[in-house]
Amino acid sequence: MRNIKLLIEYDGSRYKGWQRLKDSDQTIQGKIESVISEMVSRPIEIVGSGRTDAGVHAKGQVANFTVKSDMSLTDMHKYINHYLPQDIVVREISEEAERFHSQYNVKSKKYVYNIWNHWIPSAFERKYSYHVPEKLDLNLMQEAANLLIGKHDFIGFSSVKKANKSTVRTIEEISIVKEGNMLKIIFVGDGFLHNMVRIIVGSLLEIGLKEMKVSQINKILQNKTRSDAGKTAPAQGLFLEAVYY
Amino acid sequence: MRNIKLLIEYDGSRYKGWQRLKDSDQTIQGKIESVISEMVSRPIEIVGSGRTDAGVHAKGQVANFTVKSDMSLTDMHKYINHYLPQDIVVREISEEAERFHSQYNVKSKKYVYNIWNHWIPSAFERKYSYHVPEKLDLNLMQEAANLLIGKHDFIGFSSVKKANKSTVRTIEEISIVKEGNMLKIIFVGDGFLHNMVRIIVGSLLEIGLKEMKVSQINKILQNKTRSDAGKTAPAQGLFLEAVYY
Repeated sequence: MRNIKLLIEYDGSRYKGWQRLKDSDQTIQGKIESVISEMVSRPIEIVGSGRTDAGVHAKGQVANFTVKSDMSLTDMHKYINHYLPQDIVVREISEEAERFHSQYNVKSKKYVYNIWNHWIPSAFERKYSYHVPEKLDLNLMQEAANLLIGKHDFIGFSSVKKANKSTVRTIEEISIVKEGNMLKIIFVGDGFLHNMVRIIVGSLLEIGLKEMKVSQINKILQNKTRSDAGKTAPAQGLFLEAVYY
Repeated sequence: MRNIKLLIEYDGSRYKGWQRLKDSDQTIQGKIESVISEMVSRPIEIVGSGRTDAGVHAKGQVANFTVKSDMSLTDMHKYINHYLPQDIVVREISEEAERFHSQYNVKSKKYVYNIWNHWIPSAFERKYSYHVPEKLDLNLMQEAANLLIGKHDFIGFSSVKKANKSTVRTIEEISIVKEGNMLKIIFVGDGFLHNMVRIIVGSLLEIGLKEMKVSQINKILQNKTRSDAGKTAPAQGLFLEAVYY
């Protein structure tokens, strides 16, 4: 059996997220699996690095699948992109060792959250950013972000109701970068709980708007209470940028 | 009467072009007029710098209208963007002298045509570029483009069937710029005939693919025959970038 790794980008606007659903074929995993299954004339399941929610985009999602096939990687690559919808693209394809697993072998992930921060909206960025018209205090936001760096129980910044598994994660980096009217918040960490990036962004925005104090971040980490954190920022601003192994 | 000038950007994907139609409200002019008419409680017609075709985008379309109103420019700006669909945005609003006319006073226009030139498509640029997977000879394309600079009868590079008005135009600049996988062809000129930018792009692409000789450009200028030129490149790659007065 060959173990094939895919580097995938997708515009998540039209989809119900990464993970295949029983009652809908509007998932990215489902679309890719149906093209690959057609390609090799047997049902194929792919393993993603992790889920992305409805409306979330990716520039560097990773998935792998095992297959018995003589087809060259280039022919596979061409076939898959030819039959995928135009808003899902396989950027790279490679053959990995048998033990490579897209989910279990993840070392860290990079997410970018885009905020269009100008009172005049953008016709072209509207589907790839969250429009925040008010002025933001970026220094306060970065100060708050720095409190999140390191190893913490992030359950207060997540949609996890009852944790069966550990909710401790390590964030290596949260950088706030301004590029023209676009504010980019870049996250690198060993893993992110469900909605964790979007809830952190929502909290940082409330701090930038001076509706929340910087010190609230430490309270949320200590008290582990979701309701103390900010709103979940909308999906369309979020990009899974890269997965590191 | 006040003379109000608008600088407008739009994602043309959903629209039947700039110009208002009797049998459809899916035009950019129609959308803007209906918001402004509602704002001042009387029917308002706006004058654009010129039409853009179905599917063509704009980052710097200009239009003006005259109105009797005490409303401040800032209030107008906020009202209009609030009620416009998200894919049409007024970037700037200003008050001009009574004699200012968006169409008659145009000195020159800048168009940009985007070509995604890599065999792997882009999920994010697909609606804002034309995907050409083959390698292109950019030197031949620029050589051909240079033959078009200056004052010529461009009817052979247009969809104009029978010319009642002059089809002579002056092109000041055609630059071919590579930014990553995106090839940008930038046009500046005193005016462009119907489909002229897209037919020039289609011809330059055939030259870049070595399906047409550079010298064919001179033949088209001399013989003025549309069928000697290349295909009309698709609308979604074209942006009206700026209008100069």
